[in-house]
Amino acid sequence: MGGSPYWTVEAVRQVRYHVVSSNGLFDPGNTALLTGCPDAPMSPGDRRLVVIDQNVDTLYGHDVRAYFTAHGIDATIVPLRADEAVKQWDAVSRVVDAMNDFGIDRRREPVLAVGGGVLTDIVGFAASLYRRGTPYIRIPTTLIGLVDAGVGVKTGVNYERGKNRLGTYAPATATFLDRSFLRSLSLRHISNGLAEILKMALIRSEDLFALLESHGAAVRADRLQGTTEDLARASDAIIAESIHLMLEELQPNLWESALERCVDYGHTFSPTLEMHALPELLHGEAVVIDMALTTALATLRGDVSEAQADRIYNVIQALGLPLWNEVLEDPSLLEDALRDTVRHRDGQQRLPLPIGIGRHRFVNDVTSAELRDAARLLGDRARGYAPSAGTLVPEQVGA
Amino acid sequence: MGGSPYWTVEAVRQVRYHVVSSNGLFDPGNTALLTGCPDAPMSPGDRRLVVIDQNVDTLYGHDVRAYFTAHGIDATIVPLRADEAVKQWDAVSRVVDAMNDFGIDRRREPVLAVGGGVLTDIVGFAASLYRRGTPYIRIPTTLIGLVDAGVGVKTGVNYERGKNRLGTYAPATATFLDRSFLRSLSLRHISNGLAEILKMALIRSEDLFALLESHGAAVRADRLQGTTEDLARASDAIIAESIHLMLEELQPNLWESALERCVDYGHTFSPTLEMHALPELLHGEAVVIDMALTTALATLRGDVSEAQADRIYNVIQALGLPLWNEVLEDPSLLEDALRDTVRHRDGQQRLPLPIGIGRHRFVNDVTSAELRDAARLLGDRARGYAPSAGTLVPEQVGA
Repeated sequence: MGGSPYWTVEAVRQVRYHVVSSNGLFDPGNTALLTGCPDAPMSPGDRRLVVIDQNVDTLYGHDVRAYFTAHGIDATIVPLRADEAVKQWDAVSRVVDAMNDFGIDRRREPVLAVGGGVLTDIVGFAASLYRRGTPYIRIPTTLIGLVDAGVGVKTGVNYERGKNRLGTYAPATATFLDRSFLRSLSLRHISNGLAEILKMALIRSEDLFALLESHGAAVRADRLQGTTEDLARASDAIIAESIHLMLEELQPNLWESALERCVDYGHTFSPTLEMHALPELLHGEAVVIDMALTTALATLRGDVSEAQADRIYNVIQALGLPLWNEVLEDPSLLEDALRDTVRHRDGQQRLPLPIGIGRHRFVNDVTSAELRDAARLLGDRARGYAPSAGTLVPEQVGA
Repeated sequence: MGGSPYWTVEAVRQVRYHVVSSNGLFDPGNTALLTGCPDAPMSPGDRRLVVIDQNVDTLYGHDVRAYFTAHGIDATIVPLRADEAVKQWDAVSRVVDAMNDFGIDRRREPVLAVGGGVLTDIVGFAASLYRRGTPYIRIPTTLIGLVDAGVGVKTGVNYERGKNRLGTYAPATATFLDRSFLRSLSLRHISNGLAEILKMALIRSEDLFALLESHGAAVRADRLQGTTEDLARASDAIIAESIHLMLEELQPNLWESALERCVDYGHTFSPTLEMHALPELLHGEAVVIDMALTTALATLRGDVSEAQADRIYNVIQALGLPLWNEVLEDPSLLEDALRDTVRHRDGQQRLPLPIGIGRHRFVNDVTSAELRDAARLLGDRARGYAPSAGTLVPEQVGA
């Protein structure tokens, strides 16, 4: 005491969450939602606040209400508009109002969020702030929500033009994966989710890539409903393997303290593409264009062979995804995007680049000239020109 | 794969923060702010965003600007109105705007928050959300900020009538404690902070209580400036011991997963008192009335002797704090307050009650009749009546 006291406080916080697969969650006989999450069981007489995307409510609201009634749960269903244009604080405020009106008991009544990634991001954000943390449960209804937003720990909303500028790391107590919701999804949005699965394949798993190569187009056309035994097996395997790999990458780095994240593959140039091409490009479409560009870049470096690049481009097209967008014609845009990424990765590129199919490495030395060459190479490929050897391996580019 | 996959993700998050004492932080020769926090040193040429309470800016803004200029730091100073009435999302949004305008580099440029507890709560909240977590540094300028809000990990704002309804657990990277700011504080606000120090004394330390008993009134009149050697020693000891005890209690329970928190002493009835008597009562004043009431309750139970209660009431009055407020005359208000607290403590009272001076226990069996008796006993004491033995130990109350 006296002088200049100095204290250092250290502590660790335990985090635990569950991801549970169950098809037909709201079938009257399915009890996964009641008992599937050991940390938040539901019993007859319990109350629950359910925030549901208004479009999902139109399609499935009847089933959802009937389910809770059948199981004696007093559910208050709150439909919410949830798309990128309204992913702002106002939407969070609406969820907080609903929690206030409900008079939620934060220790016993987790909020349920039923919808796509935008809805679960908004509800998760509101819940994480309410009394400094109220548990919530996610039920993603889109493929991208199932394999990406739905299994991670990030919540948040945009702030003015800043994408996900405000948010928290707050995992849902449990996420229930039910691919039966995908039956009403447009094929374009199925493709949007397949883009994130393809990402995991390209950086982590040649086996998953092979599954997409052999079954991707059929699984897409089937909207992952498993209408034949073969398709069911393929859908289950593709989703489970993608989530398994995703969780393997997330678990040791939940709060993104490590800046070299291979799950950032496809996310170096895509945020800028997405903001410039909005509302033209969906998230997964922007991601896949980024992956096509960086595949071209890796081809120029000799890390991906021409034959492998061809397989990748063929799978992208078979999954109904674009290879190209005109914004790639503006080289300054790619440079801006790289600069912005460097700023967010503490001064270095830390760019995951594929090695063959299923492996990756991080590089810090991508040049503007190299980006231009990669864009040119990809443009040629996208327009159906077989590139000549000369354009493929320009002299200035090393491995 | 296939069937119903189930994953459980577990991880631990490391948290570490510093509390650094240094008087005269903005004296040109003081380098504590530049080097005192090893996690966020400042060097000439660095930029910093400084959000400062507008009243503090009026009083100390010149010194603050001169300090940064002298040390070659390019500081952007943003004055903010920060009082209970504007402790709402709008204020958070204003800080986010300032962070956007500044173009903050979240890994290298912690935000500085200079002001009372309301200001540091608002800035800490905004920083904790910005890109899902931007470091910040606290410089409390009130006594209650120094010993309470400033050393914990809670941030947040009110939402409509809900006090701190939205918030996060996000410690400042460092908090710098500088009691020289207190020289311009009103005596009422000095007393407001002394109430939280008295709380720590009553539940944890007879030594700290003895310090308050012997030096509290003088230290208050001196506004903890230490104008004599004796007063300086007393001020330093009182602040350091209070913070030391506070951190000892917080550290193992940073996220309040344990519901029996002795630092909740004085915070069972005070939130309701504070909301009902606003703006009449300051936070510390409401807390001290709660403590006076529960001291009476413990006296009725035989846990605190009459002599000890007298010492406690005398210290409360010597510190310029109230013993009583008319809202205590409404027994239903106390019952409402207790019910509300039970709801937030997962169905049990978990009420910390003093045992003598400096120790405590938790009880779950406080009755409405007992509360009325305690309020009557305290009322008699506050009106200067020496209570008779009959009212002190009513027959229905056991130890």
